Amino acid sequence: MTIASPSLTPLLNNELANTYAARALARCKTLSGLSQMQGGIHRVYLSKEHKECNSVTAAWMAEAGMQSWQDEVGNLWGRLKSSNPNAKRLIIGSHLDTVPNAGAFDGILGVLLGIEIAALAHTLKLDLPFHLDVVGFCDEEGTRFATTLIGSKALANEFDPQWLNIEDTNGITMRQAMLDFGLNPANYAKAALNKNELLGYWETHIEQGPVLESVNQALGIVTAIAGAKRAMITLTGQSGHAGTTPMNLRQDSLAGCAELTLAIEQLAKSASNGEVATVGQIQARPGATNVIAGKTTISLDARAQNDDDLAILLNAIHTRADQIATSRNLTLDWQWTHAANAVACDTQIQHLFTSACKLNNQASPSLASGAGHDAMAIAPVCPVGMLFIRSPGGISHHPAEAVIDDDVTKALSVMYSALVLYIKELEK
Amino acid sequence: MTIASPSLTPLLNNELANTYAARALARCKTLSGLSQMQGGIHRVYLSKEHKECNSVTAAWMAEAGMQSWQDEVGNLWGRLKSSNPNAKRLIIGSHLDTVPNAGAFDGILGVLLGIEIAALAHTLKLDLPFHLDVVGFCDEEGTRFATTLIGSKALANEFDPQWLNIEDTNGITMRQAMLDFGLNPANYAKAALNKNELLGYWETHIEQGPVLESVNQALGIVTAIAGAKRAMITLTGQSGHAGTTPMNLRQDSLAGCAELTLAIEQLAKSASNGEVATVGQIQARPGATNVIAGKTTISLDARAQNDDDLAILLNAIHTRADQIATSRNLTLDWQWTHAANAVACDTQIQHLFTSACKLNNQASPSLASGAGHDAMAIAPVCPVGMLFIRSPGGISHHPAEAVIDDDVTKALSVMYSALVLYIKELEK
Repeated sequence: MTIASPSLTPLLNNELANTYAARALARCKTLSGLSQMQGGIHRVYLSKEHKECNSVTAAWMAEAGMQSWQDEVGNLWGRLKSSNPNAKRLIIGSHLDTVPNAGAFDGILGVLLGIEIAALAHTLKLDLPFHLDVVGFCDEEGTRFATTLIGSKALANEFDPQWLNIEDTNGITMRQAMLDFGLNPANYAKAALNKNELLGYWETHIEQGPVLESVNQALGIVTAIAGAKRAMITLTGQSGHAGTTPMNLRQDSLAGCAELTLAIEQLAKSASNGEVATVGQIQARPGATNVIAGKTTISLDARAQNDDDLAILLNAIHTRADQIATSRNLTLDWQWTHAANAVACDTQIQHLFTSACKLNNQASPSLASGAGHDAMAIAPVCPVGMLFIRSPGGISHHPAEAVIDDDVTKALSVMYSALVLYIKELEK
Repeated sequence: MTIASPSLTPLLNNELANTYAARALARCKTLSGLSQMQGGIHRVYLSKEHKECNSVTAAWMAEAGMQSWQDEVGNLWGRLKSSNPNAKRLIIGSHLDTVPNAGAFDGILGVLLGIEIAALAHTLKLDLPFHLDVVGFCDEEGTRFATTLIGSKALANEFDPQWLNIEDTNGITMRQAMLDFGLNPANYAKAALNKNELLGYWETHIEQGPVLESVNQALGIVTAIAGAKRAMITLTGQSGHAGTTPMNLRQDSLAGCAELTLAIEQLAKSASNGEVATVGQIQARPGATNVIAGKTTISLDARAQNDDDLAILLNAIHTRADQIATSRNLTLDWQWTHAANAVACDTQIQHLFTSACKLNNQASPSLASGAGHDAMAIAPVCPVGMLFIRSPGGISHHPAEAVIDDDVTKALSVMYSALVLYIKELEK
């Protein structure tokens, strides 16, 4: 094991932290300009802007003392080498793609903070017992090909070759887009990582929710990425004239869905472990002011920190749906449309991040991530940890997405501390 | 006063009733063929099919011994003359236009039964103390120009000349359509009736609701045409990520509208006088599975037999909407879109119809009409009465709209009895 310099201190000088954090923020702004959308941010997988973004970011990696390369599916990598050529890899990163009309920080900030940590490690001449790899994932949002986490799934050898046949809205297949980008789609499997080489994956990300703001904290440590299930639920009754059908002779599907929507909200509220459930879509047919709706469909999106909690909540919702359908003489149709298991963050990495927060006099509230992240796709091949940065107003996927500058400085300081603490841990 | 023949009997021979009712039903089928829609019934104001329908129906009026004419807005009239040239007018009728993909009986049957009553009066040589006028209204549904009851409002001198500027979906104004039809739009006011000449307006109509079926009766006597008010109600909260926003930090407009929809249903159910209230439309924005809806709009359609009951119900609903908005931290916007006062049917005509039912050993349940009818537009200028015929399944405005043949025979018999009883009454 390499011996670290005796001056190795886990506390980053404030001025340095401010300077490097400010640079990451300025670079978020620079990357905002690489957009396929007029007057807003939009950068999808295998686009011209994806290529430009990788080039610009690769130059920043080089500036930080890193070697950089693009893998077989279009992820961008930078490596600050260990002096030990056989060292394992610690990966820090997030994604570089965006939703349409996005904010500047979702994903991007995590990649750029990874580069700043490498730049600090380079500047401060840390002797690394591992290769410090920074990754900029090519597709987390799934905006172009209606499948998400393409880049991180490829690392976990879960790139599905069927995806190559998916067409974007212009009829261009992923295969063709890869060729146009300069990738050989036949080589997708080569992007997969070797599990035995990996020490862990650390991701800094904006929270995209209101929890940290509500407890007035800059940072939070992610316990798990919630499991999610989605369904489309249809209640069918009988349409009828709104004026001529007495209240007691109705089979009103919209009223039934209203009752179910309220029940879903109530069941999630009374769940004990932070479960959430949302009805975000509703369609009533025929959908006329003077017609009782014969058929109404609602969407259900339910999430929980662990799969058992999610199953309990969904069972309760399904039971209520059955009861409501029966009592209102409606028929119930329940179609599952999506399922993702919960992914627990690695306990040791959580401890490490907590220690790093303490060192920086920073509170470290724990919270689950309700949103999906690249970390969940990589979890099958290495331990993952996530640090959340407060999202003002809880806003994300929107031009108003923001961060507080000082929160970003704190995040950089904590991640740097975690890196040094981890090096020390490995040295023990 | 003319002396009626001593043989005048209010009870119609069964065979005659069957024959004439069957003819009316056959003619409903014939008029179904005059449709501007492939594979369904649709006949709008001032269309080629409207013109054809008036021509065909005028021929049937002539066959029944009537003079016929078309008025200045396109209503079709037939008159079985009294021998007294200065006699007043008793009007029987309904409308000849339809909604898109309509049934065969809504409106049409009332006109054709009016013609059969005239035909019977002619055949049986009733000596009429009034002109028996049958009217086929040109536009009750309002399908073409988004304004309803055009024909009957013109009779009450409530044709609004602004309507002439309304365009249909093809950009044709009502003015142009009248010209194309052969009418002079400048003459619309000449369609207005002279109040002093009118004895009453009788309308037979399918119920378009499930009440008579639910009490197992063929016919019902209408007490009032319900007043109706409509509103669009919007609750605005805050959209947010369905995964990252804890249940207690949400301002979910869709959940708020669900609570309000249930409250509306409950308040109408617990009202004491047959009030109904319906949420038939709902739009949640942005309307995505994984986004809490920031803004949701529902329609409200509320009806009651009298305006006081309606006001009480609507006040209660508005109070609940305020409470829900406050408790959920949502803002409430309430836009009235439609208001029509309740119209009571004439008590004497109700008594007359009840006596006619009794004579025919027919129960005569009273019910309010939740739907609007031409009778409500004419009510300002003459007493109105309506007889409802059972609607199987309560279905209307749909190809499955139906009547039971025997119910139609009963309706014809009762209306004929009412006519004779009325003549006798006038003779007193």
